Order: sequence, then structure tokens, then C-alpha cells
Amino acid sequence: MTPGYDTFYAGRKVLITGGLGFIGSNLAHRLVALDADVVIIDSLIQDYGGNPYNIHGIEDQVSVHVVDMRDEHSTDHLVRDRDVIFNLAGQVSHLDSMRDPHTDLEINCRSQLSLLEACRKHNPGVKVVFAGTRQVYGHPDHLPVTEEHLVRPVDVNGINKVAGEYYHLVYNNIFDIRACSLRLTNVYGPRQLIKHDRQGFIGWFIRLALENDEIQVYGDGSQLRDFVYVDDAAEAFLEAGASDTCNGNVYNVGGIEPISHRNLVKLLLEIAHAGTVRYVTWPEDKKAIDIGNFYADSTKFKNAVGWTAKTTLRDGFLSTLDFYRKNLRHYVDATHANES
Amino acid sequence: MTPGYDTFYAGRKVLITGGLGFIGSNLAHRLVALDADVVIIDSLIQDYGGNPYNIHGIEDQVSVHVVDMRDEHSTDHLVRDRDVIFNLAGQVSHLDSMRDPHTDLEINCRSQLSLLEACRKHNPGVKVVFAGTRQVYGHPDHLPVTEEHLVRPVDVNGINKVAGEYYHLVYNNIFDIRACSLRLTNVYGPRQLIKHDRQGFIGWFIRLALENDEIQVYGDGSQLRDFVYVDDAAEAFLEAGASDTCNGNVYNVGGIEPISHRNLVKLLLEIAHAGTVRYVTWPEDKKAIDIGNFYADSTKFKNAVGWTAKTTLRDGFLSTLDFYRKNLRHYVDATHANES
Repeated sequence: MTPGYDTFYAGRKVLITGGLGFIGSNLAHRLVALDADVVIIDSLIQDYGGNPYNIHGIEDQVSVHVVDMRDEHSTDHLVRDRDVIFNLAGQVSHLDSMRDPHTDLEINCRSQLSLLEACRKHNPGVKVVFAGTRQVYGHPDHLPVTEEHLVRPVDVNGINKVAGEYYHLVYNNIFDIRACSLRLTNVYGPRQLIKHDRQGFIGWFIRLALENDEIQVYGDGSQLRDFVYVDDAAEAFLEAGASDTCNGNVYNVGGIEPISHRNLVKLLLEIAHAGTVRYVTWPEDKKAIDIGNFYADSTKFKNAVGWTAKTTLRDGFLSTLDFYRKNLRHYVDATHANES
Repeated sequence: MTPGYDTFYAGRKVLITGGLGFIGSNLAHRLVALDADVVIIDSLIQDYGGNPYNIHGIEDQVSVHVVDMRDEHSTDHLVRDRDVIFNLAGQVSHLDSMRDPHTDLEINCRSQLSLLEACRKHNPGVKVVFAGTRQVYGHPDHLPVTEEHLVRPVDVNGINKVAGEYYHLVYNNIFDIRACSLRLTNVYGPRQLIKHDRQGFIGWFIRLALENDEIQVYGDGSQLRDFVYVDDAAEAFLEAGASDTCNGNVYNVGGIEPISHRNLVKLLLEIAHAGTVRYVTWPEDKKAIDIGNFYADSTKFKNAVGWTAKTTLRDGFLSTLDFYRKNLRHYVDATHANES
């Protein structure tokens, strides 16, 4: 099926904030293939997810600015001639947000407001697609979770992410800066940070499997989650960026079906032909901000633009493992990771 | 009926942020009468609502620090020995938040996080009651609005206020800093800012009536609101501060019954024996962030601590008009307003 955006991005001036990060860089690869004019902002803060190697193969076809979103003057300048902004820059560690809440606020709230103010002043015709998160729902009251579910974040990161999202909606509604937000569930795939375990467990599990190491699953592993392969997530951004139906809306972007941690790890180990699993007691700090079972209903987004998750977990794991086996040194070794 | 807090506040060390403001100062008067040890923080920023005259009569029985909540070092020090913090400091103008969103963020998000961090580090046993707002609900889907209604703020102020509220809940849930939030509807009464019209219409209407001036009602005046007399609002804070049932919860604190703007103004003019009314077209900037009809269901709070609004609009207006007739020069004239 032809995607809704068809030839929309050819020659289109696009900005990706957090464009050297996991989802941003996969989106950059897609946009280059679609002949877009791609500008990337990334702070490359140690441990945050940005990795110059993520644009390996397209480095001559994109323009990269190593800039912190907190630097308002840069953002102010860089938004000016853009048609579409994919706004993915953020601090994504839940645990870090509890240890250093002010930094999380500066990046996930203040910088979002600065970006939107820059658009309002210098480029009110731009379209902005914000990377939201299912974390804003907290412990769900019912499953699957629709966009009508109460927002009830369980940590500082969830609060700041939802404030960042609300700013986009208010700027859409009041200042006509066309904007929408995609509330992503657990995204996985090539170019994800796997250097440490503070940005979600899925990348970390993949790394442990790759290195034939032991995966620790908390509790009995019965907790359910849904997973989106990064190519599907990138498609969701492309659809949202090209559709004015989406303006002023939030959409869940979730996986094909839920799976327990137990079965997820079983599948991963089977496909990787490596790694082991051990069930351990929940660490206190992680248990406190865990959200129990979660899976999203993405019907609203499907109805809006026709998007659905297409990649099975099996296919996604196969591609992901293949990617990291070829490129592992760029993702686990700090020395190599900083070479482009 | 004996209030739930009974002798709770006698000798109790209390901090009121925004304590020279409207609700904060009325609360201070009540706490002094209850023999509490009252410390007040207020920035006294021009036009924000703080007024030294608001503690006229109790100035020798409270300790006042003219400090901006954005000054983390002061807050850090002042929370240390307190038993209860009534956290009412904030930027409250919706229009100002759209003109200067960063200042609103600094005060309503960042400073809240700093206050809670100060509690976490230096006084984890403290109880915090946060002044939330019904503005977080935006345009309601159904009436009356319960706490189960989606949060969908229509302006930057609403977003930052709800982030501030969520921080309190997360610090309650994760760090055991006992905290709750009262989502106040339209509060009115003595000591409210009536110098300008940017902090809600009710105080401004009262001033126009007092000065026998013309009150402009937008549209046909059919929009519904509920109003809480400030003594009832202060009672709500006292109840929440003394009750551990409230920890981790948000509660609507609304009026006895809804009334249209049309009937509200009619009643006000009748009681004031002064003023006139004219119906005018909505100004663009105000229409954009108006929320239509709104009234709150406060049953959850009633069930928790037994609180209900008790003061009729008629009685509330009588007391308010009487107060301002005696003290008007301290509320309309900048020169006098700064004398204590």
C-alpha cells in the first residue's frame, strides 16, 4: 500500500531534534531515502542516546548541528526555514529524572517551550510532530489503554514529557502552530542505545543476548508490554508529519500485540541462539516507578492516517540482532561510538 | 460541627508560600487564630497578588520573608523546621502565561520542583498541600466535573500548574513526602487582587461594582461557573493539611452551586447598590482560552474530610463588599497598597 505521505517529503525541509538518537536517526535514514532536505540537532550528551554512527551511510546527505536544545539561540535560528519538525530530543531515563529532576525539566519542558516559541516567532507555518510517551498514563486502569485514559505519570520524566506534549497542543490550538503528539510504547530496533540499562530494558536485553550474558527479569516476568519496531515508529512520524488531520491530537503508537516479559525474553534467546535468563526480585527504585501491565490501543491513529504496526517481534529481533552483530563496536565501546 | 483538624494547628510550624496573596493571607489569618507558628514566603512581584496589607492585624504574629520561590537557596533553608507547607505561590494569570510562557514555567513548574527537592533533602516528614486549579480540565466533556475528568489544559498556565501538581503526587508516592492538591474553582473574597483584570474576572467585577462603574460581560453571559468564598477555601486547606487520608490525592474544591455570569453580575449589582452591566463581544485572546461552562463536583473531598462550601454567594458578596469599602485604598492605589 502507498503510504499516506507518498511524495510529500521529496525536497521538503525537515528538522529532526534528537536526530542522532535512536528513533530520530532511523527517521533520518527514511527521510534521506525520500529525498527530503534533512537538518539534525543533537546534543550528543554522554549516555543520552545520540550516537554519530547512527547516521553512518547518510552523513553526507544530512546537515548536523551538535547543539543542546537548551541553547535557545540555536533553536531560534534553526527552525526558521523548515517545513516539518520531528521533535524527538529529550531526556528519556526515568531513573535519571528522579535523581536529577531539574535537568529533566530543563530538557523536557523548558526546551520544548523554547522550540515552540521559536516557531511562533519565526516560522508559524511549520508542522511539528512531538515524540510523546505511554509513560504519561502511569499504572493503567484498564487495558488496552486508549487516549481517553487519564494522564497520571508515575515519575518526573512522565510529568515533564506530558507538559512538553501539552505545550504542543496549546500552541496548535491558540497560536495555529500545527502540532501533534505520538505517544510511543516500547520502541526497539537498530541504532538504539545499548551502552547502559537506564533507558528501558529492551535494548539492554538485546545487548545481553548478543553478548551471551544473563538477562535478569524482575518478578515472575508476567508483566505485559507491547513493542514497536523502530521502522514502524518512523513510519508513524512520517504519516503524522504529512497529515493535517493529526493537528492538535495525541495518538497512541503501539505494537501488534502484547507479550509478557517472560515470553519476550524466551523469544529473544531463541532467535539470538545466545544468552540466558534469571528471575530476580524487583529492585526498590525500579519497582517504585514500574507501571504494571501495559499495552496500547492505536485505533485512533489507524483511523486518522491508516498506520498500523507491521513488523512482528520475531522479524524485528532478527533485523536488530543482525544490525548489532555487524556494528556492535559502535554501540558498546565509548571509543568507537564517537567515530562516525 | 468541629472541624476535622480541631486542635491540630496549635503550636504547629506552618509555612505558607504566596502567603501575602489572596488565599494565602486569608489562611494566615485563620492559622494565627488557631495559634499556629506561621512563616510566610512571598515574592511581592508587582501585579501578582501579594499585598503586605493582606496581613494587616496579624503582622506581629507571623514571620514574613519577601523571597521569590525561584530563589532555591531561600526555600531550601525555610522548609527545614516546618510541619505543614501550604504551597500557594504561583503565577496565576492565564493571559500572562501566553505572553511570557517561560516565566510561568519557572514559577509554576521549576520552583515547585525545587520546593519538593528541598523537602526531600531537608524535611521529608513535612506535609504539603498544593493549590491546584480547575483550569487543568480545560473545556469539560461533562458537568459537573469530577477528578476522573481528563486533564486537558487550554493554556500554558494550566499546563504548568498541572505539572506542579503532578510533582507533588510523585514526591508523595515515590519519596514519601506527604502531599495532596486542591483543585480550586473560582475563589473570591476579601484580600483578592483587584488592581487589574488579568487574574480572573470575579475580583475585577467586584471592583467595578464598588466604583459604580460598568461591568462588561462577554457574550450573552450564559456561561456557568461555581464560586468558592475564600473562608471556605481556607477551611479546605486546613482540613487537607491535617488529614493523612488526603495524601497522594487531588480534590476538587468548588462552590455550592453553579451560576451564570449574567445572574452573578445581577446579584452583585443588587447587593452593591452600584455599578451597571453591558454585554460585549468576546475579545479574541480571551475567547481562545475560555473553557465554556464549568462547575466542579467536590464529593470526593467531602467524603475524605467532610468539607463542603458553606458560604452563599449573597453572604460572600456582602462580606467582600464590606471589606473593600473599608480598605479600598489598600487594593486599588499602588502607593497605599505597599504600606502595611
